Amino acid sequence: MKRRYSSHHAWRRAQSIDELAWMARRRLPAFAWEYVHGGSEDEITLHDNRRAFAAWGWQPRTLVDVEQRDSRTRLLGAPAELPLAIAPTGYNGMLWRDGDIALARAAASRGIPFTLSTVSCASLETLADAVPEARLWFQLYVLDDEAVRNDMLERAKRVGVDTLMVTTDTVVLGRREWDSRSYLNPRRLALPYLVDAALHPQWAYRALWPQGLPTLGNLMKYLPKEQQSAGSAAGYINQRMTRRLTWEVLADIRQRWPGKLLIKGILNAEDALEAKRIGADGVVVTNHGGRQLDGAPATLDALPEVVDAVGESMHVLLDSGIRRGSDIAKAVALGAEGVLCGRATLYGLALGGEAGAAHAIDLLKEQLHNLMAQLGRPTLEQIDRTCLRRAPYAATR
Amino acid sequence: MKRRYSSHHAWRRAQSIDELAWMARRRLPAFAWEYVHGGSEDEITLHDNRRAFAAWGWQPRTLVDVEQRDSRTRLLGAPAELPLAIAPTGYNGMLWRDGDIALARAAASRGIPFTLSTVSCASLETLADAVPEARLWFQLYVLDDEAVRNDMLERAKRVGVDTLMVTTDTVVLGRREWDSRSYLNPRRLALPYLVDAALHPQWAYRALWPQGLPTLGNLMKYLPKEQQSAGSAAGYINQRMTRRLTWEVLADIRQRWPGKLLIKGILNAEDALEAKRIGADGVVVTNHGGRQLDGAPATLDALPEVVDAVGESMHVLLDSGIRRGSDIAKAVALGAEGVLCGRATLYGLALGGEAGAAHAIDLLKEQLHNLMAQLGRPTLEQIDRTCLRRAPYAATR
Amino acid sequence: MKRRYSSHHAWRRAQSIDELAWMARRRLPAFAWEYVHGGSEDEITLHDNRRAFAAWGWQPRTLVDVEQRDSRTRLLGAPAELPLAIAPTGYNGMLWRDGDIALARAAASRGIPFTLSTVSCASLETLADAVPEARLWFQLYVLDDEAVRNDMLERAKRVGVDTLMVTTDTVVLGRREWDSRSYLNPRRLALPYLVDAALHPQWAYRALWPQGLPTLGNLMKYLPKEQQSAGSAAGYINQRMTRRLTWEVLADIRQRWPGKLLIKGILNAEDALEAKRIGADGVVVTNHGGRQLDGAPATLDALPEVVDAVGESMHVLLDSGIRRGSDIAKAVALGAEGVLCGRATLYGLALGGEAGAAHAIDLLKEQLHNLMAQLGRPTLEQIDRTCLRRAPYAATR
Amino acid sequence: MKRRYSSHHAWRRAQSIDELAWMARRRLPAFAWEYVHGGSEDEITLHDNRRAFAAWGWQPRTLVDVEQRDSRTRLLGAPAELPLAIAPTGYNGMLWRDGDIALARAAASRGIPFTLSTVSCASLETLADAVPEARLWFQLYVLDDEAVRNDMLERAKRVGVDTLMVTTDTVVLGRREWDSRSYLNPRRLALPYLVDAALHPQWAYRALWPQGLPTLGNLMKYLPKEQQSAGSAAGYINQRMTRRLTWEVLADIRQRWPGKLLIKGILNAEDALEAKRIGADGVVVTNHGGRQLDGAPATLDALPEVVDAVGESMHVLLDSGIRRGSDIAKAVALGAEGVLCGRATLYGLALGGEAGAAHAIDLLKEQLHNLMAQLGRPTLEQIDRTCLRRAPYAATR
Repeated sequence: MKRRYSSHHAWRRAQSIDELAWMARRRLPAFAWEYVHGGSEDEITLHDNRRAFAAWGWQPRTLVDVEQRDSRTRLLGAPAELPLAIAPTGYNGMLWRDGDIALARAAASRGIPFTLSTVSCASLETLADAVPEARLWFQLYVLDDEAVRNDMLERAKRVGVDTLMVTTDTVVLGRREWDSRSYLNPRRLALPYLVDAALHPQWAYRALWPQGLPTLGNLMKYLPKEQQSAGSAAGYINQRMTRRLTWEVLADIRQRWPGKLLIKGILNAEDALEAKRIGADGVVVTNHGGRQLDGAPATLDALPEVVDAVGESMHVLLDSGIRRGSDIAKAVALGAEGVLCGRATLYGLALGGEAGAAHAIDLLKEQLHNLMAQLGRPTLEQIDRTCLRRAPYAATR
Repeated sequence: MKRRYSSHHAWRRAQSIDELAWMARRRLPAFAWEYVHGGSEDEITLHDNRRAFAAWGWQPRTLVDVEQRDSRTRLLGAPAELPLAIAPTGYNGMLWRDGDIALARAAASRGIPFTLSTVSCASLETLADAVPEARLWFQLYVLDDEAVRNDMLERAKRVGVDTLMVTTDTVVLGRREWDSRSYLNPRRLALPYLVDAALHPQWAYRALWPQGLPTLGNLMKYLPKEQQSAGSAAGYINQRMTRRLTWEVLADIRQRWPGKLLIKGILNAEDALEAKRIGADGVVVTNHGGRQLDGAPATLDALPEVVDAVGESMHVLLDSGIRRGSDIAKAVALGAEGVLCGRATLYGLALGGEAGAAHAIDLLKEQLHNLMAQLGRPTLEQIDRTCLRRAPYAATR
Repeated sequence: MKRRYSSHHAWRRAQSIDELAWMARRRLPAFAWEYVHGGSEDEITLHDNRRAFAAWGWQPRTLVDVEQRDSRTRLLGAPAELPLAIAPTGYNGMLWRDGDIALARAAASRGIPFTLSTVSCASLETLADAVPEARLWFQLYVLDDEAVRNDMLERAKRVGVDTLMVTTDTVVLGRREWDSRSYLNPRRLALPYLVDAALHPQWAYRALWPQGLPTLGNLMKYLPKEQQSAGSAAGYINQRMTRRLTWEVLADIRQRWPGKLLIKGILNAEDALEAKRIGADGVVVTNHGGRQLDGAPATLDALPEVVDAVGESMHVLLDSGIRRGSDIAKAVALGAEGVLCGRATLYGLALGGEAGAAHAIDLLKEQLHNLMAQLGRPTLEQIDRTCLRRAPYAATR
Repeated sequence: MKRRYSSHHAWRRAQSIDELAWMARRRLPAFAWEYVHGGSEDEITLHDNRRAFAAWGWQPRTLVDVEQRDSRTRLLGAPAELPLAIAPTGYNGMLWRDGDIALARAAASRGIPFTLSTVSCASLETLADAVPEARLWFQLYVLDDEAVRNDMLERAKRVGVDTLMVTTDTVVLGRREWDSRSYLNPRRLALPYLVDAALHPQWAYRALWPQGLPTLGNLMKYLPKEQQSAGSAAGYINQRMTRRLTWEVLADIRQRWPGKLLIKGILNAEDALEAKRIGADGVVVTNHGGRQLDGAPATLDALPEVVDAVGESMHVLLDSGIRRGSDIAKAVALGAEGVLCGRATLYGLALGGEAGAAHAIDLLKEQLHNLMAQLGRPTLEQIDRTCLRRAPYAATR
């Protein structure tokens, strides 16, 4: 009898994020799975993100009192139950009806922040209304229309967003070639993918019923009438993404935004120092989950250089590749204040909505606590570079 | 005609421990195999234990008189036929009726020590009665009830245990996720595993007949009436394992225990020096067979640092990953006094009881003797670091 | 639903050169595919060419204005839309009727040079007549008959070739053992390959109809009557290839050729300096696409040494292994003026003739432009060694 | 259509030794294939021998006159057409009736030496009679009976052996576990292997008809009557192999043997210097084809150290792992006078007797000549360390 994950319906018994991913792959139609899971071009960076975590092993101490394990910390100045926030991901409604709201509720129930994407299905207002208990962060894509940009900032202020995260690595979209292969043209699924979608009734019921395909709620008011379907809107937005995004634009946003400001898209010390210069509060070390520049460094590899440059004076978060509690701990050990996870909670969302996403967070937390006990470091402050060792090379593959 | 191991009934013709493992996998129901063979989380450390052995090659000398090969040595001050002892493993009765006794007899017949686990099926008293010829070591899990702990020490003294081995790396249980997947809850096998078990009548006959599932004999007297089944007992024990296990507790045990004392759970020089400070006689360099902290160093990688720190003044044993006679020799070359093997003899036990375990020991011995001849070093004293060379990296995978 | 490339008829939707290759493999009979795709002996160098590209990752900068991306450059002193030229490949007519002409038209339509091979199907004169808009380069194999060699130079001058590329790494043919396995003898396909060819009617229609197997048009006038079939001609040419090809011969050619002169077959600084000494204008760093010396260095590995030696004073082009826009950029970052691509456009040619080859060029261009935007370097001048980082070793496999 | 080797009957069209191996595997019964092809224990050294060749790439020069390629050299003071000799291998008659004679004739026809094994099927006298044109070397296993040893030396002198090769790495037999799995006991094939043998009539006809299993002709006169079958003899010999083989014994043999003396079994400088001290003429760097100590160094890795120690004053040959002409050249580049090949010619022998073995030699020669041309080094003297470069690590797997 071979090792086998259980049925993809039994997500409550999943023991790891990888198992949730396996289940989600079976639950979702291929085009949606590809959209969530895939990377750009040859997916070198996608896989390198994981390799970078495997490249570190632990150096445990024994015979330490670990009766009390505590993973509480502060993120961007406010308390969080874990050094973890939900990353902004677009079009969550394709995985589960009102997916943004489900994710936000899961985050709130577990005491961590949730980041709403510019290309979310729920608008800022809807989300804030539906989940008043959320600690709400907002991710901004900068379009070429300044009025739209400023209006989004105003709306974010109005609904009580405490942290603004400006994404800078998406001025042109990465070549997600496998994703493109699902479509005959940007708005039309190729036949085999349509058939495949039809064969996933559970997904269709959870995600599409009764309203059909969700729209990009957050942007609806800026879209021309004839481009309000999600497919059209995505193309429209991509077209209007400014390619003239520079540090001057960010400095201007800094002036207009009174809350915390994070720059998401930093992979080296030079850019981190620029972020500090324009007055940002922090940076997110990210390669967009391996979905933009293929060949970009793994985020865990880039982290130490950024921490060394600005770690004393700025909040440094790490994004991309988190699949285990030990990954969170490795980022913390190398100087991150915390991490963002995107796919991990999306897998849970696709399987069980709010409860599924919460299960994903619970797995990460349990794994982190287990690690802290076994490492002989029961608090996050004790987890630093001395706990790590370079894994022998052969062990990283 | 492809290379193929023979039928899993012909274990007496098995040529290697890997072949025994292959056979045992077919003999055992999946849940039992998983329990014996698996590791924690992504099993990185489990595999790294083997990689670390592969990372060393030999540097033979030729034209040496090797008519007399001699693998006799002293372990913890007393003679042994091989630098090998049987590691403590829990619940051996699940593999073979009265498995502890069978293992102890195999060890005694081959002139090596046997270690009884705290969570054994046979109690200390039963074992000592049944195998008076055994050189008996006892492994202690420290529970939060001091009276229980002290009582176990008393019992061990009474039955003539010469060496006490205190395990320190299990204050919380490692996440053996694949093991958990066998169960709906800690006491109930999932249906496919039940069916699979029913399809292994040979195992059922050997392990379960006529008494049914064995109990944790060693702990029976401390268990509440309603928790004396093995499943319940395991949960109960895990819950009562103290998370406040510190060097002070070990110092206290040192005071109470007049015999040899080994600390099992050491992976670096700092902790080895602590062990020396509290007066332990030796340490076992172990990562619990890759079943506790995933990402912990391979034991062969950790060994030299421990030997350099305390090798002159303490007994240093290596545990985890022994599959060949050459593995024993590599540990000895790097300074270990000897090694423990857990799974290797369990595979033999599962196939042939005492005779099967003895066959596993015989294989290791034959391989060790063959190596000594080919290496041009017919005694163990001659096997030192000069016999080793780093394997070219590509050869370690 | 597994990731799968679409039908091999839908080449216009191919997203990458690898996808085109997959499609071409299905379109072509096995012997033709092998001829185009294979390498020599164990194909170590063939694969190493790709590994060398994977060994470099990118170091992007963010928040740079990339509204204008520009990949225009100068090759051998004249403008080109991309730092790319079509490499000389023999017997293109086997893939598509009048394949040389189709390739030359595709190159001209995309603003890049096309190199005609000595062993082309179209003669220099036919090609120049059919594609007057082409920027025409000519590749010379040096035969042992000096009169033939000089006549070819005269003809090249006459039709307006601006650059002569002399191949120096083919004085004996590499052992393309898999290619040889297609044939019972140099002129006769083995039966399974004949049957396989018969099962590819689309190919037969595009390549063979109505004239049948093409001949080596360029050499026809030098061939004995009875050796004018392609099979005979290839054997004849191979036999007459001079093994006495030395720098003196090249110096003589330099005297006779008034245009630009490139030496194709350079893999180190010493030979590059020799090329400079005899007055060549440039060198092509190549290992003949892994088809000659198996074990020769990957071209991207050899490039920096050549650039350091002669990069200031000569044109340095890189050949072999280009499959992505980012590969072009890596060569440019390491100092190449541009690259040659052979197989990439041949895959397109085999699928769609001129349009297919043009699609291959378009893919490379799109990928290059996308990369420039994501890298924050919108012009080729900005792409230098500071944009690169060594990929962690594990990521190169 | 996938790449596939052709039918295993068409060995005359085989393009490489690997292809011959593939064919031989199909021609031979499994037990015989295993005996020829397998290694000891986990076959780490077996594979490492090949990895070590892959670890070197070439550094070619271009535009060199290579009209004349010449691979002639001197081995142990006498001319040879190639830097290659046939290694001693036991029981060749199991592959082809009178296999020793066929190999010796192939070697003689190609101008290279042939080494007869102590455990050959043809006796020294038979071989010398049958192939008077052979340059005959003789390999000696030292048994514990001095009279036998001295008699073998006398016989070797009498038949005109010019070089004696004493094997020192086989005082105990390596654990060739897969080989052992073919047998129920040393003399009896397990049933599936018997059936498999019966299914290879072509082999049976070529090897067994009409005399049946061959005997160990060379040793027949020393064997007790009841142990003259090959199976019994092998066991008897293995038992009588002296484990007291020391440098003193070798010094004694040196005294008694007037011809050239090679010590086969050297893997480091210390032992090479001992060989020089006792007056040997040369050494063979070997690990017995990966069949003895598993974990021993690859021979190409061990070669430079031996060459540096005694290369000026002794003949140094390399054994184990030769599969291509380029492997021969790599050994020569690193200082070997020549190489031995065992399996390569055995594959040919198993397929076509003398003609098959000759085809294997021809392949190696053709590949070597092709390499010399492409490398721009048309003579062996020019092939030195400057022609080599370390292959990038990823390329060695």
